[in-house]
Amino acid sequence: MSPSAVQIHDEVQQGSDLIAATMAKKAAAESNGTLRPLDASALKVTLTQNPQPVPEVDDPIYKTCSQCTDHMVTAVWNSTTGWGTPELKPYGAFTLMPTASVLHYGTECFEGLKAYRGYDGKLRLFRPDCNAKRMVISSTRVGLPAFDPAEVEKLIISLMEVDGARWLPKSRPGQFLYLRPALIGSHAGLGVGAPKEATLFIISVLFPQMDTVPGGISLLASEDGMVRAWPGGYGYAKVGGNYGGALAAQAEASKRGFTQVLWLLGDECKVTEAGASNFMVVWKTKEGKLQLITAPLGDKIILDGVTRRSVLQLARDRLSSQNGDLEPIEVVEEWFTMDQLLEAYQEGRVLETFAVGTAWFVGAISRIQAGKHELVFSEPAKYATQLKTWLRNIMYGEEDHEWGVVVNEKPALSRG
Amino acid sequence: MSPSAVQIHDEVQQGSDLIAATMAKKAAAESNGTLRPLDASALKVTLTQNPQPVPEVDDPIYKTCSQCTDHMVTAVWNSTTGWGTPELKPYGAFTLMPTASVLHYGTECFEGLKAYRGYDGKLRLFRPDCNAKRMVISSTRVGLPAFDPAEVEKLIISLMEVDGARWLPKSRPGQFLYLRPALIGSHAGLGVGAPKEATLFIISVLFPQMDTVPGGISLLASEDGMVRAWPGGYGYAKVGGNYGGALAAQAEASKRGFTQVLWLLGDECKVTEAGASNFMVVWKTKEGKLQLITAPLGDKIILDGVTRRSVLQLARDRLSSQNGDLEPIEVVEEWFTMDQLLEAYQEGRVLETFAVGTAWFVGAISRIQAGKHELVFSEPAKYATQLKTWLRNIMYGEEDHEWGVVVNEKPALSRG
Repeated sequence: MSPSAVQIHDEVQQGSDLIAATMAKKAAAESNGTLRPLDASALKVTLTQNPQPVPEVDDPIYKTCSQCTDHMVTAVWNSTTGWGTPELKPYGAFTLMPTASVLHYGTECFEGLKAYRGYDGKLRLFRPDCNAKRMVISSTRVGLPAFDPAEVEKLIISLMEVDGARWLPKSRPGQFLYLRPALIGSHAGLGVGAPKEATLFIISVLFPQMDTVPGGISLLASEDGMVRAWPGGYGYAKVGGNYGGALAAQAEASKRGFTQVLWLLGDECKVTEAGASNFMVVWKTKEGKLQLITAPLGDKIILDGVTRRSVLQLARDRLSSQNGDLEPIEVVEEWFTMDQLLEAYQEGRVLETFAVGTAWFVGAISRIQAGKHELVFSEPAKYATQLKTWLRNIMYGEEDHEWGVVVNEKPALSRG
Repeated sequence: MSPSAVQIHDEVQQGSDLIAATMAKKAAAESNGTLRPLDASALKVTLTQNPQPVPEVDDPIYKTCSQCTDHMVTAVWNSTTGWGTPELKPYGAFTLMPTASVLHYGTECFEGLKAYRGYDGKLRLFRPDCNAKRMVISSTRVGLPAFDPAEVEKLIISLMEVDGARWLPKSRPGQFLYLRPALIGSHAGLGVGAPKEATLFIISVLFPQMDTVPGGISLLASEDGMVRAWPGGYGYAKVGGNYGGALAAQAEASKRGFTQVLWLLGDECKVTEAGASNFMVVWKTKEGKLQLITAPLGDKIILDGVTRRSVLQLARDRLSSQNGDLEPIEVVEEWFTMDQLLEAYQEGRVLETFAVGTAWFVGAISRIQAGKHELVFSEPAKYATQLKTWLRNIMYGEEDHEWGVVVNEKPALSRG
């Protein structure tokens, strides 16, 4: 890997972390005035009197992505007093006025991460600090308040301390719970402006395993009329507008038998993301150099995915020299176009393509349809498989690593 | 006006209406299968037992845009049975699960229109068919269901039949109520996909008069890092993602003392919209031809505003030949850039700039800041004023016109 690429990578990554730090400072500055900061240590805990039955791991409810654990965390912010006391309380519905900002103006952002039950019995989160930092960037992009990401990270952990033991018991090693922190404009009023009230909530949801799509993941390249994100927009932020706007193209892809959309951008058809995941290619350059290439963060088009970050870091750390039967590989965060991918494919230079994200984890692509061209990948994706194994080992405690944050669980609630 | 421009205009306008018609047909086709269509004639009416006091017209509550009338209309759709029975019922909060699609994925669209109390005592809506048609286009753009726009129009009218007499009494000629139809993904489940349940609601809100900004409307041209809409996106649809994503730039403009953002697009800085309104310029071309110019609909970047449509139509109908002291003007829907506007301004060729939309109505711009350039407009905006007068006359019943749809009001509810 060339020094300049390392430097660019570090600057971009730091850029993202620095923005989060700036937002946190902004929140702190406000709190020095009259606005209270978000304070996880003030958490008020009210445990449920009616714990729900925990479904078996093969229960069809997993597929609905709707079954939550017994509790949730909430905290309400308003523009005159700042953050109220965060609460951990029984999971339940929200009451929102029909004039609530979030129902009209897309004032919403979210995060997705998982809690993993390790083979050593411990419960771990994977780099929750990355999610919390990204969330403050997303929040302020759509007129929602800033906060210290460290406080949100603590609140996420609090929920798992209480619900982890019962909902992801030690008898289920290798399983996970999905965690969804979100922040919405709950202010009731139709004036178009930054909401004067916002509600943070963190819920934990039963999610199906999505990392083994039968036959592999197939992608339909997006067409002219549909673009996911654009320069000057908010593709880098995890905000509602990036998802609702993608559903029409996703439905078309699904109708035509594809798993997801491969999002292209601009007249030159830059390859950006696959569905709601980052997209990676292992190819040989025309000069014969082996590369892992993915779209860069600098233009703020693509999401700074936590799995993306981690895969790139592991590849840089462990695959820059020969590793077992895997040849050394250079990691490159640069734009590449559909034409370049197609040319490389036709010249037999593409070894693997795969999608990485929290939901799909690391998923090999079996087929890409781009206009009249079809790209088929039938060889085992060796690099993707190795990277996935390393990540799994960290998540499930088979490798001790700073990215795996152990939760100090409280004893399981007994069913009332 | 050149024949080709007329033709293009008609095609684009028809294009938009045709899309709405296609969506309505899609809804009808579904209903021929197993899905029930939206049917306003089935409206179930439950009147409030506790009518709220109606605030005086100078009550500060108007500024909050949060005080709704006594009732609202709702209808719930689901993917297996179609549309449920629409209900007119007492205004009140929604109960939404934390996993509801709308809170995460921006599955939301809305409309804005007004009911006007005429000087003849009658209550009128202004072209509600246009709003209903646009709504089905917005809805299907973000994975929400289709419906026959005529049914939504009827439901809007139903709400005014019941709440109009008390909330906008005959003693308040020249006043209006704001109407907000909206459709949200109410499906509880975190899978990224078209919601399996959606909720339509129509509320009526007290809104302040916004058409006379003290000192006129001032605009700050958007900078590189902020774009409202883009080719392949959804700028033409009234969906949440277009609003939340604009708040950061709007806050910056406000902090710097401007009323709103003037949204530019691309390296060439095309002039698109002003805040959440369409933007119009009256200028002389280099050849000395007087034109009313505004951004075109064809690229799906800008909103097909009802006020925009109506202003252009009136200008075509009534200003293509001399009208009083107003010289004939050509109406042009074409892209123009900030550089072109600036050049025309510096050469003394810009007569007026104004913003048109339901909230601001027709508002003259007093100042535009674009980078280091300042454009100041101090002359009375004669064309804007004339067009606004014509529209007001139609809205408030001083001119009989097909655009003004009279509501057959029921007697006012008495306070319980």
